[in-house]
Amino acid sequence: MDLKRVAKDTAKTLISYLTYQALRTVLDQLKETDPPQAYWLNSFSSNTSIQDGEAYIEELLRARQELAFRIMTVREYLADEIAEFLPEMVRTGIQQSNMEHRRQHLERITQLTIPDHPAPPEHQTDEE
Amino acid sequence: MDLKRVAKDTAKTLISYLTYQALRTVLDQLKETDPPQAYWLNSFSSNTSIQDGEAYIEELLRARQELAFRIMTVREYLADEIAEFLPEMVRTGIQQSNMEHRRQHLERITQLTIPDHPAPPEHQTDEE
Repeated sequence: MDLKRVAKDTAKTLISYLTYQALRTVLDQLKETDPPQAYWLNSFSSNTSIQDGEAYIEELLRARQELAFRIMTVREYLADEIAEFLPEMVRTGIQQSNMEHRRQHLERITQLTIPDHPAPPEHQTDEE
Repeated sequence: MDLKRVAKDTAKTLISYLTYQALRTVLDQLKETDPPQAYWLNSFSSNTSIQDGEAYIEELLRARQELAFRIMTVREYLADEIAEFLPEMVRTGIQQSNMEHRRQHLERITQLTIPDHPAPPEHQTDEE
């Protein structure tokens, strides 16, 4: 298992995803303040894939540099604000999802419904 | 800007991406140890989108539970191993990309090639 490669690929995917979230943020802002610009950016982004965030910004810089700069600033801000919370959210999220999948699967294969809080076992009443 | 929503969406995307990386890891292992199983998992994953990691695992649990459990274990391991490095990688990655985009753009619009290490300015020789 090549953990270094996985980490690198994951970081790259994450950067592209934050670029997409930055685009959404800027679009929302422009809809309020400058609808024609919002319309233009929306059309541009329909024709230019943001799957690769860097290629997207490169294209946008050539088309309307001020919008590209704005998205670059916002994605840097988003990374600063949320990156530190992601490890905990992802670890906990996976643990909980895995647990839930296992529980549901057990229910399915046993054809039983397991209550979330099972009743405590009966007390043994025979005393010594 | 709804940072809480962005963080939540980003964590969800990250979990799906790690599920995909776990699938790739398990596929690589099976190719060595159990080629027919690798072939089956590859076909299954071509027909079942892993875009939503949880839906993918749900389907796989119904089809071949031992493979689903294995992918669940691997994605939990990947998260434990790499999650802590992601914030720094993402922040630094975005800062460096942004700087590089700005530099290239400046070059383009000034039609100049800016050297990485510009020569120091000439000393002023007129003395008072």
